[in-house]
Formats: sequence, structure tokens, C-alpha cells
Amino acid sequence: MNTQTFLTKIRHYFVLPILFVGISFIYAQDHPNLILTKKGVQEIRKHLGQVPIFDQTLANVKAEIDIEMEKGILVPIPKDMAGGYTHDQHKKNWKTLQKAGVLYQILQDEKYASYVHEVLKAYAKMYPTLPLHPQERSYARGKIFWQCLNDANWLVYVSQAYDCIYEYLSKKDRKFLEQQLFIPYADFLSKETPQFFNRIHNHSTWGNVAVGMIGLVMDNKELVQRALHGLQGVKANPNLKDNDGGFISVDGQKTGFLANLDAPFSPDGYYTEGPYYQRYAMYPFMVFAQALQNKKPELNIFEYKDQVLIKSVYALLNLTDSDGEFFPLNDAQKGMSYLSNELVSAVDIAYYFGQKDPALLSIAKKQNKVQLDEAGLHVALGIKENKVKAFPKNSITLKDGANGEQGGISILRSSDHPFELVMKYTSQGLSHGHYDKLSYSYYKDGKEVLQDYGLARFVNIEQKNGGGYLKENKTWAKQTIAHNTIIQDQISHFGGKYEIGSTHHSEPYLFDISNPKIQWVSAQEKNAYPNTSLHRTMILLEDKDFNTPLLIDVMHYESDEPHQFDLPFYYNGQIIATNFEYKKPEKLEPLGDEFGYQHLWLEGKSDALSTKTSQFTWLSNHQFYTISMLTNSEDLLLFTRIGANDPKFNLRKDPALIHRKVDSQSDTFISIIEAHGSYSPVTELAKNASSTIKSVEKIELLDKNYIGWTITTKTDQKHTFLLCLTNNKKEVLHTIKFMGNTIEWKGPYTYKKTN
Amino acid sequence: MNTQTFLTKIRHYFVLPILFVGISFIYAQDHPNLILTKKGVQEIRKHLGQVPIFDQTLANVKAEIDIEMEKGILVPIPKDMAGGYTHDQHKKNWKTLQKAGVLYQILQDEKYASYVHEVLKAYAKMYPTLPLHPQERSYARGKIFWQCLNDANWLVYVSQAYDCIYEYLSKKDRKFLEQQLFIPYADFLSKETPQFFNRIHNHSTWGNVAVGMIGLVMDNKELVQRALHGLQGVKANPNLKDNDGGFISVDGQKTGFLANLDAPFSPDGYYTEGPYYQRYAMYPFMVFAQALQNKKPELNIFEYKDQVLIKSVYALLNLTDSDGEFFPLNDAQKGMSYLSNELVSAVDIAYYFGQKDPALLSIAKKQNKVQLDEAGLHVALGIKENKVKAFPKNSITLKDGANGEQGGISILRSSDHPFELVMKYTSQGLSHGHYDKLSYSYYKDGKEVLQDYGLARFVNIEQKNGGGYLKENKTWAKQTIAHNTIIQDQISHFGGKYEIGSTHHSEPYLFDISNPKIQWVSAQEKNAYPNTSLHRTMILLEDKDFNTPLLIDVMHYESDEPHQFDLPFYYNGQIIATNFEYKKPEKLEPLGDEFGYQHLWLEGKSDALSTKTSQFTWLSNHQFYTISMLTNSEDLLLFTRIGANDPKFNLRKDPALIHRKVDSQSDTFISIIEAHGSYSPVTELAKNASSTIKSVEKIELLDKNYIGWTITTKTDQKHTFLLCLTNNKKEVLHTIKFMGNTIEWKGPYTYKKTN
Repeated sequence: MNTQTFLTKIRHYFVLPILFVGISFIYAQDHPNLILTKKGVQEIRKHLGQVPIFDQTLANVKAEIDIEMEKGILVPIPKDMAGGYTHDQHKKNWKTLQKAGVLYQILQDEKYASYVHEVLKAYAKMYPTLPLHPQERSYARGKIFWQCLNDANWLVYVSQAYDCIYEYLSKKDRKFLEQQLFIPYADFLSKETPQFFNRIHNHSTWGNVAVGMIGLVMDNKELVQRALHGLQGVKANPNLKDNDGGFISVDGQKTGFLANLDAPFSPDGYYTEGPYYQRYAMYPFMVFAQALQNKKPELNIFEYKDQVLIKSVYALLNLTDSDGEFFPLNDAQKGMSYLSNELVSAVDIAYYFGQKDPALLSIAKKQNKVQLDEAGLHVALGIKENKVKAFPKNSITLKDGANGEQGGISILRSSDHPFELVMKYTSQGLSHGHYDKLSYSYYKDGKEVLQDYGLARFVNIEQKNGGGYLKENKTWAKQTIAHNTIIQDQISHFGGKYEIGSTHHSEPYLFDISNPKIQWVSAQEKNAYPNTSLHRTMILLEDKDFNTPLLIDVMHYESDEPHQFDLPFYYNGQIIATNFEYKKPEKLEPLGDEFGYQHLWLEGKSDALSTKTSQFTWLSNHQFYTISMLTNSEDLLLFTRIGANDPKFNLRKDPALIHRKVDSQSDTFISIIEAHGSYSPVTELAKNASSTIKSVEKIELLDKNYIGWTITTKTDQKHTFLLCLTNNKKEVLHTIKFMGNTIEWKGPYTYKKTN
Repeated sequence: MNTQTFLTKIRHYFVLPILFVGISFIYAQDHPNLILTKKGVQEIRKHLGQVPIFDQTLANVKAEIDIEMEKGILVPIPKDMAGGYTHDQHKKNWKTLQKAGVLYQILQDEKYASYVHEVLKAYAKMYPTLPLHPQERSYARGKIFWQCLNDANWLVYVSQAYDCIYEYLSKKDRKFLEQQLFIPYADFLSKETPQFFNRIHNHSTWGNVAVGMIGLVMDNKELVQRALHGLQGVKANPNLKDNDGGFISVDGQKTGFLANLDAPFSPDGYYTEGPYYQRYAMYPFMVFAQALQNKKPELNIFEYKDQVLIKSVYALLNLTDSDGEFFPLNDAQKGMSYLSNELVSAVDIAYYFGQKDPALLSIAKKQNKVQLDEAGLHVALGIKENKVKAFPKNSITLKDGANGEQGGISILRSSDHPFELVMKYTSQGLSHGHYDKLSYSYYKDGKEVLQDYGLARFVNIEQKNGGGYLKENKTWAKQTIAHNTIIQDQISHFGGKYEIGSTHHSEPYLFDISNPKIQWVSAQEKNAYPNTSLHRTMILLEDKDFNTPLLIDVMHYESDEPHQFDLPFYYNGQIIATNFEYKKPEKLEPLGDEFGYQHLWLEGKSDALSTKTSQFTWLSNHQFYTISMLTNSEDLLLFTRIGANDPKFNLRKDPALIHRKVDSQSDTFISIIEAHGSYSPVTELAKNASSTIKSVEKIELLDKNYIGWTITTKTDQKHTFLLCLTNNKKEVLHTIKFMGNTIEWKGPYTYKKTN
């Protein structure tokens, strides 16, 4: 038994406080001090058995880790892709080590420290012998994993384990681990793979934080600086791209942890890659901030950029549907939610290091687990003490861009009904962005009414391309036609070119939720197609004429010459009725050759449209929906289904209705999306199975600065809207003439109901 | 104020019991006495405010009826199809009247009696003027509705309303209603439409009960006799068919209520049309039985045919998945469940007039409402008094046929896991039957793993063919290819001919659940195709080699000459992997021209199968599944999707994998369906995403009376099965030789695990 182990042993038998003084003299440090702290551990131990959610989380973690530890030390030579054995085992190890470290501190049972030590020794013996990982698919191959990203994940967690057993180890043990494993590991992730470390990207955040965390544990100032400010003096290579097609480096760009807080985060806390990747990045951001706050409180990291980290947690929670699932913007797997472990940490840290907002406790309560540290303890105590308040989800705009000047996301939420509209008019969103300017998705009660496809990937399912992105992510999911937005001449926005898309963003025009019964959002896009401007306005209207809110979608376009324009509606469910005739082909063929059109089967096509208001009714989740579209007789309505040119069955076979305007220079798609009635397969009652809308008409105006339209119900109630397209100032007075009347109003729009 | 109203009024001010004697003298009757009884009403009133579920049901009904009554008396001239205004209003009326009658009795508030009276007067004035309903689509047109069936529904409910206000009315009032409305109404439903009244069919049950109920209220013995025993002396017309293609009458067949208990019900209480229609028929069966028990207890109706009515309620509850939804056998709308009002009545009546089985209370508790009568009161009291026991759902066989000699349904339920297999080897099931001999469906936790399509109909959704059956019900849903069973030469069983199908049934071979870890069901079909015999055996095997039970499907066929045989698997979800190569066509074409094949798009086709165990893995509801199929190199695996030749988008676009044997005289499809692992989009962990099975092999045996097969796991555990195809006797000894060994066993099968 060495001195250290002996000292640790006798701590169990003698009074702790006295010994702490002695030990801290011996080691001139006070570990743990990264995420867990000495003070925190004391407080936790004082409350053990008294705070239900904390105790339950601890019991679950203990049960899980005890089972893992029984399997022995498993540190295989790296070989497999994601989903394969060695990948999964090393992934499991990082989690087990982090948790075992925590258990050692909280339960003060040495078996956990000893286990962590043994596993770390195995890694330390193996690491110096490792070449690059044999799988050659990544732009930045790791050593333990096929990509550096996962190596960085490992170190972010394992640094915490090392911190927890730091004092348990002898100086010699520590020297061995640091020299064989941790320092070379940190150098590999940074100096040896600058294309991974020195970017504005969630990959780099993981890399930065990995290096920073281990730097903090070892008190290695150089590593901490490298983490905060990036590698200095690295020459950018503008031709390099990552696996997702994103740029790897841009000359003169600041890098490192702080730069990754500056650039991808907007002042509203929106992360430009979108909520799915923000969720992924939240863990390193928040946990490193917590570590910095513990070890370098003088940095005041939670105050950085006007508290952007805390704001980002609120932004993320706002970017969820009523089930807590993230809106699948850009590359995003559906179903990911605020129940994920990353959000457990983020919510706990934002609560403890923020304003102790009781609204966050309602999310934590749904998560039903906490971080096993001081932050988690205080969350669990808050819940125990009934401080919980509901998290308010209101209509909101989250601006995009480092300074909030690159468009944004607006969410309109109905005040009395469970409907949510998500409209996207952001910048490209880095390499995970989609070509989906002015797109939207629409939800009822957490269920998709009009969906965004999400990504084409089965994350971590090995049989599907090793769990990685599928070819169809690029050929389908990123393309414009995969979204509920306008497409010109069957070509994606910016020609589907990242180089062009990433230099532009849409512009907000209007966001007005002052009247909860008629909420407006409007935005413009002038660069998606050369010499074409797009202007979309969406309105959530609540009125007693309708059972539920109407979603009014007004997509106006102007071009210098005629084009074809498509506007798809990605509905779900079964078609109930149309008020137009259509023909279905005897054989199915793809709708086009490229830009995603090659993936759409054409299942039907309207015959000459005889009515100016074309209606399409479907049934989904026991609710009827109708889209009422303003159509010209030359317009086409196409029935499509995803699935063509999909040799490996990688795509979902989802349907869409596409409204097509042929040979059109300037026009406005006006579409009313209405939820009505209900159907129950138990009572077999179909209530209000038909639309309440009789017609949608455009108001012909001489002044092209304005558009106007009227919705008429079957009971002849008329809802009339006028919108100025060229001046969004609130205080400006407008006067226009139509139907012999002169109308005057203030601000960009007016609305009137008559009968 | 007439005498009667006055008497009713003063009842509120004087002591009731004394007056009751007087009133019953005056009227020589004791109404209500049909469903509600005088004694029952007294008991109910005694408990008001003390029995939560009863009180809550009453409050809901009162709130509903008060709103309806405010709308006034709405008795429009009949005009519309199902889903249209007049249809819906008359349907609403029958419910409102029945409930208003009950409210009058329980709350003793005259406004309800007066309302019922006013509405009945409006009907009585209109009825004599009515021609047949103007819609000409039914084989038996009604007067109030487009089909007699709905006219009968109306009278079954309205008879109860009349009974409730009988004593409120003057003799003159009653005479008016009976002569203008009820007697002609009952005659119309019986004498004037014998093709509706005199059948063995759920329609006739409604007709019989309608006539019987009003007969009981009016004490009209002739009508009651007509209801119980059918119209006498009606000449059958063997050429007539109903709208569903069923025969209308067969000479010499007994008819009437009792005959409809004899024939479509088996001694196990299985109703030959299947659970969806059994559910529909349960209400008239049970409510008329209750009325007969109240008014003619000497009939002992609940004892009839060894308590077949009570048994039928248990059969029906057993024919539900773990969410309480009926297995969609034959024509059946998915989602219909034991929460339906018909089952509320059925469960309450079976409880009260049966053995007061506390297991029924657990169903009533989920229904969370009761009949507002003595039966419902006692159910609610049972729940209040915590008598509830779980309803046991075990593996079970329900025999079909009046004497239980026409095949049946077997359900294998896993003892430790939420898996349910439903195998069908019944008779045709009258006009709502499908051509699905030896078909099955498979469930996990109430979710479909391998589905039965159900019906092609949107019940009561007017836009879809007036809510009636769609053309595709015949061209698709009834056809054999729409089911998980074998198809020869792309022709449905019995050539899809009802005349042939309805004269045959499958034969049970084996049902052995003595060992809950290996449950067997096996059945034979010798008439679906001339000179071809089919023998399917299905096994639910639980073993520690597998996370969840294996479903083993052994479909053996023998014919006198070579044919093509198809075996489809109607999976749901996304394809994850196959161990065979396949090609997908550039254009989609239908798989065939008729018998449902014209509705299938061919989405892909296997290349030459190189392995003898072909595997197909998919992901559904976060669970991985693999089918491991024994394949020859000449076999084909086809990927299909429903939706071709569907001009009105009436069909769901569901996929299937079809295993095809080409040019084969005798062979065995052996398929192992395995649920394994899981996927979470929140943790993004894919557990056990691959099958645990390495191979499925057939054992070559010289004696063609036997088949045998071995399943080998990836860890080389071998599970071997031998089955005698020609002798199902338990006590018989078998001896066969293979691989140089002699195997001996007793009974039709043996199973052994080795490694």
C-alpha cells in the first residue's frame, strides 16, 4: 500500500476536516475541483437520502456502473466504425469512467477509484502505441475512434473521472497517466489535427473543451489557453472541407472556445447549426463553463456575451414542440428532446449558475434526473421544495448570426390551441444547414401537421452506413424540395452550393404578436435565386368562425423573367377529399433528375383547375385538415411520394402535395391551412369533416407595393388582409384604393372582418 | 293539463310508493320495465351522489342532453346518405331520446319526458307520409335512413325512451304514437322488408331486436314472437345478395333473434363475422336479453345455449390487443375498442346478469362509464368497493361455427413479454369475411408487428363514398394477398368467390399451450385451392437465447402439380438491412392484374439468393425485427407497397415483403420472426440491432408424414423441431430416423435444444 492509498484509507476512520487540511498541504491542490468540488461533495453527502430525484439518479447510476464494473476492464484495440464493438466499448468506457469517478466522490467507496485507475492505466499503456484509427472515412481521423470528434468526447468525460480520483492517486501514478495518455492525447486533438481543433464548429468546441478540461485538472495553463483561444499561427487551407461539406478553416478567423461562443451563437442564444446540434454542443459548452466558473471564477464565463450561455439554454427549450422534442431544423434526427442527458446538464447548470429560475425546474421535473453535482443537487432540492413553475412557451423570435443580424427563427404559438408554427429565415447554418430559405413546419400538440423531413441518417445504427450520414442526406434531405418552401425551376436555393449559401441569409420583415389572436411573421430572401426576390408572410389567425387557428401562408415572388415555381406541403395521413379532378398514372416515375426531385414519385396530377380555390382535405391523428389554395387554371397540383432512386430504402415514403405555377414571373401563392373537426375510430363519429372556407381571393391592387386577399367562409364571413411589401415601419401611414374605397391604416398590414 | 300529466306532477309532491300502487292499477302496467325497471330506478336514486363512476356518467349525459334539447325539436325529412345532415340528425335523435328517457326516470324532471314526447310526436306525424328513403344504394332501403339497418338502430334506442315515458303519457298519446309510428315502423322493418329481417346476419339481429323491444314495451305478443322466431312462411330468394355480397336468404333456415344466437355464435361465444361486427351486434343482443330477462324471466335467456351471451362478452374481450383494440379480422375498422359504448353495455350486463365477475370490473374501470341502469349501478358499486380484479388474457382458442366445428381463432400470448399472435382458421364469416385462410397477425404491446389490413372504408366520413364501403374493400382488403397468408398462382382463396368460400372452413390440427415457453398452434386448409392442401404451424418460443419470444411460422403445402406460391409479410416501419442483394426498378408498376395484386407496386426484387437463410431487418416503434427465411436459390423476395390502381387514394401505402416460390409442387415456407434490441432517438443508442439467428435449415426426412427444421443462433445453439403432419393425437408414439439417429417421441411434435 502506497502512502496515498493509505492516507485515503485512513480518511474513512478519522475525522475528515482535520485530514483535509493536511492532504491539501501535501498536494497543494484541492481535487475534485472541476465539476464536482470538495465543498459540493460535502453538501451532497449531507443531503443523501433526503432529495428524491437526486437519490434516485444516484441509485440508477450506481446500479448501472456496478454492472459495468463486473464485466472487467475492456479496453480493446480500436478497429470499428460507429455502432461496431470497439467503438461502442470505448464510448461506454468514457461514460462509465465519468460516473465511477462521481460515485467514488459521493459514496467514498474506493472500489470506484480503483476501477477508474485500472482502466486509465490500460488506456495509458495502449495510447502511445496507437496509429491513426484504421477507418479512413473522417476528415480528422481519431485514434480511439474513427473520428477525432469521438476522441474529444472521450476526453471531456474522462477528465472529470481523472479529477475525481486525482487525490486517490500517487504522484507517480499521475505522472504516468499524464505523460503517457493525457498530454499526448490533448496534443493530438489540437496540434496534430488543427483541421479539427481550429474551426467555428461543434466539432471544435468538443476539441477545445477536451483540451481545456484536462488542462484544468492538470493545472496546465498552456492547454487551457489553447482551449480558450485556439491554436495560434496555423495557416488556413481554404480548400479543405469536412465530411459534411463544411469549410474547415478560414484565414484570420478567431478560434477556440471563446470564439465558438462569439460566432455560432446569436445574442438570443440561437446556435446557427440548429437545435439538434446545439443540443449536442451544449454539454461541452456548459460543462466547461461550469469548470471554468469553479476554477477560474475571474473569467466570469456565464456573463460572457451578455449571458449567452444561459440564454442559449432558454433558446433551446423554446425550440421544442409540446412534447419537448426539438424542431428538426437543418440536419436533425427527429425524436431528440430535452430529455437527453445533454439537456439535463444544461438545465441544471443554467438553473444553478443562472437566476435559479423555477421555470427550469419544470423541465428538470420532466427529465426526472439530475447531474450528480452541486447544480443537480440544487435542482433536486428546488423540486423537493415545490418551487416548480411552468416553463412559458410563447411566440418568439430567435435571431441568427453573431450579432443577431443574419435572419432568424420565429415561432408562432396559438394562445388557446396547441398549434405551433416554426418559420426559418436564418443563415445557412454551417455545414449542417439545409437549402430551406423561408421554410416552415407546423405542429399540433407535438405532432407534425406539415413536416420538415429532418436528416437522412440512422444515427448509430451500424447497418445503415455505419450510423453515419447517408448519401440521401445530401441528395434529398438538404435540398430545397424536401422542405415546405418555394423552388424555382426545380433547382435548390443557391444552386445547392454551400459556398454561395453560406455567404447569405434571409432578412426579417415583420414579427408582430401584439394581438394574440392574429400573429404575424414575415421575411424576405433575395439571394436564393439570381434576380428573384421571395417574400413570405405567415399569419396565425384565431377567430370564432373557425374551431382552431387558421394558418395563412402568403408566398410572394418577383423575378425578372418567367420561371416555374413549386410550393410543396408535406402533410401526413390519408387523403379524404379534393374539390379538383386529378389523374393518377399507371406507372410511377420520378418527378425530376436532380436537386431532390429524382427522389419523388409522381403519384397524381390535377386536371385543368376549374375553381380558383382548390381544396385538399386529409385526416391525420384523428383530426381533419384542409389546405385552401388560390389557384389559376394553368396551375398544377401534384401528388408526390418520397422514395424514388433510393437503392437502399434509406428514405421515408412520405407524401406531399405540390402547388406548381408554370411560366410565371411574379405572383403570390396564398394557402390557408385549417384544422377542423375530428374523427374517432371508437365512436366512429366524424365531426366537421369539411372545411369551413368557401374561397380565397386575391385583391387586385394597382400599387404593386401592396398585396391583399380575402378569405370567405361558407357562412359568408369575410376576412380581408392588406400587406405592404416594401415598408415594414410601424408608424408609417398607408392609403390605397380598391373597389372604389379608400383604405387607410398605420403599420405594414391591416386586417378586417366583415359580413 | 290532462289527467296523466297531473298525476305525474303530483308524484313530486306526495309520497311515491303509495302512488305507485295506484298508478299501476290505473295502467295495469309497471313502466319502465324494459331496461330500466321501477325497482332499479328506486335503487339508483337511493345511491345518487355516492357512486363516482355512475354519478360522473350521469352528469356527462345530463350535460350532453341539456345542450341537445336547447337546439329544439329537429326531425327533418329524410334525404342524406351516412355522414349527411338528415342522417346525422336522426342518428343523434335516437341517442338523445334514449338518454332523455333515462334522465326523466332518474332525475324525475318532467322536462325530459316532455321533450321525448314532443320529438316522438314529430316522428309520428311524419312517419305515415314517408316513402322509401330517396337514396337507392341499399338492398333494404329504410325510411328514416338510407338502409333499414339504421331504421332498426333507431327503434332499438327509441323503444327504451318510450318505455321511460310510458306512464307519463295519456292513453290517447300512447295510442297515437303506437298507431302512427311504432306499429307501422315495426311492420315495415319486418313484414315489408323480409330480405332484411329474415336472415342470419347482424342486420337482422338489429331488426329482430327493434321489433322485439317495441313489442315488449307495448306488450304486443305477436311482435315479440316475430322478433324471437322470425317471420314465418317467407319464401327465400336464393339469388338475392346484400350490399356486401352476402346471401340474403336460404330456404328452410331458422330466423329471428334466437336463430341468430344459434348460428353465428359458436359455443365459445365467437361470432362468425369477427369481433368488429360482434361488437356492433353486442348492443342489440345484450340489451334485448336484458329486456327479456326483465319482462320474460321464464325464458332464461342468459342461460340460452349454455350461456352463450355471457361467453360472447368474454370472447370479445379476449379478441383485443393490450390497448383493448379489437383484432381487425374480416371487415373491421382499426382502433375500435372495448371503450366503445356497445362494450360498456355488454360488460355491465354480463357482470350483472352473469357471475358478477370482478375481472369485468377492470374493463369497466378503463371504460370509465356505465349504463345508466341497475346493471351499471352495480358495476359502479363494485368498482367503488374495490372489488376490481385484472382481466386475465391468456393464450386461447375460440372455435367457430354453431357447434364449434368450423375451425376457429387461436391467440398465443407470451407469458413474460407483450407479444400476441392471432391465427385465423375460421369459416368464411358471412358477407364480412375475408379470403384469408390460415392468416395471422402479430402484435407487440398493442402495436402491429405484422398487420392485417382491416377494411377499406372510412366509416361515417361522408366524403369517402358516403362513409360506406369502398370499392377497394372488395378489390383489395378482402383478397388473400392483403393478408399474411399463402397465395397460389396469384389467385385468392376459393377464387375470391363467396359462394364457394362460405361452404368451407379450415380445420384445427393442434393447439398446445401446456408449456408456456413453447406454445403451438397448427391448422389445415384443404379447400382454398383445388388439389392443394395447406398446413400452417406457428410456434411462440421463449428461450434465453433470445431477448424476446421467437415467432416460428411453418407453412407447408402439397399440390398435385407445380404452382407459384407467395407468402407476404406486412411489416411496418423502415428497412434497416437485408443479407441478400436486390434491385429496385426505375419505374414502379403493379405486381399483377387482379385478386388485389393490381394494388401492389413492385418496389424491388431480390437477385439470385446466395444464402439459404435470407434475412430482412426493419425498425418499428423503436424495436428492431428480423425475419429469417429458409430460401432456395430460385426463390424470389419482393418488396411491395400498396397503392397502385387506387384512383381516389383510398388505400394506405403500407409495405410488404413477399417470399415467392416459383414452380413448386410441395415445399415448406419456414420463417422466423424475431424482435431484438431497441433504438432510442433520445439517447441515440442502438442495442442489438442485428439478429441473433445464424441459420434456419430444413431437416431432410424420408418419411413425408413429418417435417423438421433447425434454428441455429450466432452462438451455435441449435433449436430442433420435428412435426408429424398427419396425426395430431397426443398419445401416439412416433419414431423416425435421420442423421443416423433414431428419434422417438409421443404426440404430434418434439423439440430439442442442443449445442
